[in-house]
Amino acid sequence: MKVRKFSIVDASMERSPGQDADIFAGNLVDERHGGPVTIGYGRYGPNQSLSEVMAVNDVMVVLEGELSISTGGDTFTAGPGEIVYMPKGESVTIRSHSEGAVTAYVTYPHWRDPEA
Amino acid sequence: MKVRKFSIVDASMERSPGQDADIFAGNLVDERHGGPVTIGYGRYGPNQSLSEVMAVNDVMVVLEGELSISTGGDTFTAGPGEIVYMPKGESVTIRSHSEGAVTAYVTYPHWRDPEA
Repeated sequence: MKVRKFSIVDASMERSPGQDADIFAGNLVDERHGGPVTIGYGRYGPNQSLSEVMAVNDVMVVLEGELSISTGGDTFTAGPGEIVYMPKGESVTIRSHSEGAVTAYVTYPHWRDPEA
Repeated sequence: MKVRKFSIVDASMERSPGQDADIFAGNLVDERHGGPVTIGYGRYGPNQSLSEVMAVNDVMVVLEGELSISTGGDTFTAGPGEIVYMPKGESVTIRSHSEGAVTAYVTYPHWRDPEA
């Protein structure tokens, strides 16, 4: 794969797996492209919540809005330009605020099963 | 490692290796933390330029300013919220504009030799 630039309009947003909240993810680079990482954009509607045990290592860069992340009894809030690192195996609950949020993410390894 | 949040003020900026431009990188998570990826922030002064052959796969999210990336005879410009994926082995020249730029990056594997 060559060097590439992506904007959020390049991402085909799909509802985040295993939940029915207004939270969408769009992969730009993933297991179909042969590289080691998945790259994409996420979009959170207002006041949504998602709980998961991380299946992969996930780096999330907040681009718009704010997200509150609860893990291990602690809660913190991340805004534009801040990075949240969620290692594989950790339990997290991610909540959006009234304005929703947009994120960029990078995961290692790919979060979607190549066989799926 | 647990879930963590980072801001650019958390990064200790050092001049990017192998060059003397006004371009700095600050790792937040790297080989010292045991995970598979390096995470950090980059800062480019005005009108700086950096050419390199990618030693690792590098995902760069532009947070402030604009960067022009030249590779394989093509040049494109990325601004806030846009993602540039630079796979290992590709040759790139990155140029900042008059306002400089701030980026977040994720690399796989770590870009700094653990033995260094």
